[in-house]
Amino acid sequence: MSTHKLRVIPLGGLGEIGKNMMVLEYANDVVVIDAGLMFPGEEMLGVDFLIPDISYLLPRQKNLRGIVITHGHEDHIGALPYILSRLVPPIYATKFARELIRMELKQRGVRTDAKLNLVNPGSRIKLGNFNIEFFSVCHSIPDSVGLIIHTPVGTVVHSGDFKIDYTPVISEATNFSQLASLGTKGVLLLLSDSTYAELPGYTPSERVVSDTLDRIVGEAKGRVIITTFASLISRVQQVFDVAVKHGRRVFIIGRSMKEIASMALKTGYLSAPPGIICRLDELKTLPHNRVIVLSTGSQGEPTSALVRMANRDPSSRVQIIPGDTVVISATPIPGNEALVSKTTDSLFRQGANVIYDKLAQVHVHGHGSQEELKLLLSLVKPNFFVPVHGEYRHLSLHANLARSMGIPEDNIFVLENGDILELGQDSGRVVGRTRARAMYVSGMITGELDNTVLRDRKLLSRDGVVVVTIAVDAESGKLAERPRIITRGFVDAGGEQMLIEKGRGVVVSALDHDKGRLVDQSFVDARVKDSLSRFFYEQVHRRPIIIPVVVEVGRTQREPTN
Amino acid sequence: MSTHKLRVIPLGGLGEIGKNMMVLEYANDVVVIDAGLMFPGEEMLGVDFLIPDISYLLPRQKNLRGIVITHGHEDHIGALPYILSRLVPPIYATKFARELIRMELKQRGVRTDAKLNLVNPGSRIKLGNFNIEFFSVCHSIPDSVGLIIHTPVGTVVHSGDFKIDYTPVISEATNFSQLASLGTKGVLLLLSDSTYAELPGYTPSERVVSDTLDRIVGEAKGRVIITTFASLISRVQQVFDVAVKHGRRVFIIGRSMKEIASMALKTGYLSAPPGIICRLDELKTLPHNRVIVLSTGSQGEPTSALVRMANRDPSSRVQIIPGDTVVISATPIPGNEALVSKTTDSLFRQGANVIYDKLAQVHVHGHGSQEELKLLLSLVKPNFFVPVHGEYRHLSLHANLARSMGIPEDNIFVLENGDILELGQDSGRVVGRTRARAMYVSGMITGELDNTVLRDRKLLSRDGVVVVTIAVDAESGKLAERPRIITRGFVDAGGEQMLIEKGRGVVVSALDHDKGRLVDQSFVDARVKDSLSRFFYEQVHRRPIIIPVVVEVGRTQREPTN
Repeated sequence: MSTHKLRVIPLGGLGEIGKNMMVLEYANDVVVIDAGLMFPGEEMLGVDFLIPDISYLLPRQKNLRGIVITHGHEDHIGALPYILSRLVPPIYATKFARELIRMELKQRGVRTDAKLNLVNPGSRIKLGNFNIEFFSVCHSIPDSVGLIIHTPVGTVVHSGDFKIDYTPVISEATNFSQLASLGTKGVLLLLSDSTYAELPGYTPSERVVSDTLDRIVGEAKGRVIITTFASLISRVQQVFDVAVKHGRRVFIIGRSMKEIASMALKTGYLSAPPGIICRLDELKTLPHNRVIVLSTGSQGEPTSALVRMANRDPSSRVQIIPGDTVVISATPIPGNEALVSKTTDSLFRQGANVIYDKLAQVHVHGHGSQEELKLLLSLVKPNFFVPVHGEYRHLSLHANLARSMGIPEDNIFVLENGDILELGQDSGRVVGRTRARAMYVSGMITGELDNTVLRDRKLLSRDGVVVVTIAVDAESGKLAERPRIITRGFVDAGGEQMLIEKGRGVVVSALDHDKGRLVDQSFVDARVKDSLSRFFYEQVHRRPIIIPVVVEVGRTQREPTN
Repeated sequence: MSTHKLRVIPLGGLGEIGKNMMVLEYANDVVVIDAGLMFPGEEMLGVDFLIPDISYLLPRQKNLRGIVITHGHEDHIGALPYILSRLVPPIYATKFARELIRMELKQRGVRTDAKLNLVNPGSRIKLGNFNIEFFSVCHSIPDSVGLIIHTPVGTVVHSGDFKIDYTPVISEATNFSQLASLGTKGVLLLLSDSTYAELPGYTPSERVVSDTLDRIVGEAKGRVIITTFASLISRVQQVFDVAVKHGRRVFIIGRSMKEIASMALKTGYLSAPPGIICRLDELKTLPHNRVIVLSTGSQGEPTSALVRMANRDPSSRVQIIPGDTVVISATPIPGNEALVSKTTDSLFRQGANVIYDKLAQVHVHGHGSQEELKLLLSLVKPNFFVPVHGEYRHLSLHANLARSMGIPEDNIFVLENGDILELGQDSGRVVGRTRARAMYVSGMITGELDNTVLRDRKLLSRDGVVVVTIAVDAESGKLAERPRIITRGFVDAGGEQMLIEKGRGVVVSALDHDKGRLVDQSFVDARVKDSLSRFFYEQVHRRPIIIPVVVEVGRTQREPTN
């Protein structure tokens, strides 16, 4: 029936955790799944975050039928504020995700004509040749969905981010019978979350955290301060529930926690009996054992409420008191380990008793472990399999799981961003690659990675910068004065005056040649850079960036000043 | 009997993992335990490593009786090359540690008159009022010892770094009866390793790794490449043993692995039947299933042998072949997680099957978990307790363990670097603080942290540098030409020419005032910095470091050039 092939093109999220974006294309119809951002590695200096490269989509704007969002985490919606300035497709999202997209667009000051359409688990939408059904999955944010996408070539199942939780705290459990019945009818392709493909066994149910929180709050003689991800609404609900049970009031602190909890209460994702949530100015009126503080800062973010408490920031409205129990109900996202550890140390220094993931089960994560990934594979029984959402090792290990379950080697594609996979009903092949680099956002600048700006920042960060001013006499072509040297981030200017002074002499010697006039800027540049680089490396084993500034003196007004 | 108090002064290693150094002082006798380095956090840009501040020791040189080394890891010996230029005390170390100290001094080109004395488990030495006995402990390097230090005030036990291993692979098991008999006689103070105080239960024996390696090598159809810490000799021995068992030869690759294995074979810490270790040029002559490659690179170090294989570096003498099994027999040291993950991903990309700590028990660590820490406390029964070697949270949790075992609150001291604890037979008190900052080593420069150099590096790493050249006409006091702007690490100079061009105009406007002459350098500096900072922030939300260079033109020879 299908005269065209189905194209599957990851533009982000494969070979990395973050900036998820998957393109499906059939004939003149293009559908995009998710549009996320990624936080940069520490080597990407001065980069705020990374977003997918949409070069493939730009010339296909008129074919773009929509962007379908699986849930409201930043790595699935965070690129929208940036790409909506260049593309204006309709967006389809569940209610909670849609609220977060609205908050995100507002916060970044983005106005768009793109329509934010509401879908629900169970909804169906038709986007050109694609008929899309949404099904509930459990994940660490409400209203997460997977997708069943009927195409002329066959049915595609996209898991979204998921874990299997038979006893979720707030969301619906996954509808397995629907997936199983699809499996018996035949599924062309499964795209499945690989984030935790390293972990054997099953991810515990969100509900196990209740027991730990119950015990901790029950035993605590003083205040309990709990931090978690603001969007992890099921955890927030468990905190409310444990507060009710132990007769404590909840004080919410931190901007994102207040905003999202308030939105979730309004929209019905959270429920709390009247009077449980109190205003911060009532905190002092209650005995310590009647207090729970719910705070941002689970990732040790330097300006978050918890970190300000940990550092005794005088502007913080809550200060740690010896006897406080602090529960870090989260694990550090890779890259944040050091910040979280530092926060934990500071809290201990203030006399708090800190309970975190290594000490008690105060957190469970939101992605499926190996047995869950196998369960999905066994229900869906796909003809082709593409592991998505993960570093390369996660994708490889997920592919191993699929292989161990009997999916033929040739039907498993470990793709990377930019690979173009073409699928027919019985055949699949990577036919080429498109541009899918990481685009960085740094302040208001967006660009490609791997450029000289980042390389220079790396050099500057290690050894700083040395500016050498060379005044050349316009008449004689000789140095008009002894070169001047200004350094930043190189050596302690006070302690190393001799080094700098000797460096000035090195420049004088390097430029002192009888015949030539110092007129050739590139000659002067090269001599200064070479001689000073060598000198500083010999002296202190460092290689600062050297910027020569050559100025002709004794002659004026070469260029008008306005 | 004692007329003086015993002073206990940590100069490093408390509130941090690394740069261990503990001072004991009684009357005119000073003894130092360990002299280690620490690898810098990512925020310490351009810092190679950190060493302890020895300000307290310098004025007490004549009282310094010796530096006693507990084992040969960098965080216990790595500061020696630096402090031996300022202090020349006798050093006491076990044989393996002494060999590593010699290698370290040689590598850094340090000659010293300090005598490197050999001690053994069971040895006793007398350093002034201190009588020191050494006892074997199990740790991830051979010849690790703890110390029993008899002082006029009482006996001090220092655990060194330790775990309890009843079935060690090469070292002696700890002599518990000696410690227990001390405990019954009365111990004044226990100083005990807190590194893994977060972990419940017991650390597994080194021997469990044998079973995993045996299974992996037995099942591997191709070559097996194993990486671990070069100084983890017991692991290297297990690799040799498994090679013998499965009829494979061992090829050693990577400088430190070759050097330390060679030293350990010579000194008898390692043993291998003749012919098991082969030269790399014989690698090609053997079938794949007869090969084990033992490599450096367990921490993803960018220039290590394993990383060069992972990156298909053409200069690497071993390249990954699909079907290779790579075993990462180590865990990432905090801070190295991203490098190790990147290496793992690259190895998978090359077609290797990578087995690492999350997938199988290919590593056990070298520090005791909570039950082992409790065992030591219960054997030694100290009057006073000071947790050592750990971040603040580790020290706090270790203190909690001591408290739970009945040591009175007032006898437990969670110290930080620089605290001066004075102990009498029945009383202890922190009497003051001495300087114990982190000293950084950056190339050949050593200095204090927290200075403007590091702050500037941080700013440079985020937003780069902008050099503005202002030529002022000496006669008129006006701009002689339009200001020039050079940037590095700020914006893409090609893509953002308009921004730079507008910036030049901003400087012109800022300096354009009818009356004044641009003679006051600090006035010009401030105007340029303020106006450009504001402009760039408005335009692109970045704040580069701005360096104005003001040159007077139209007048020459203000200063002789030589």
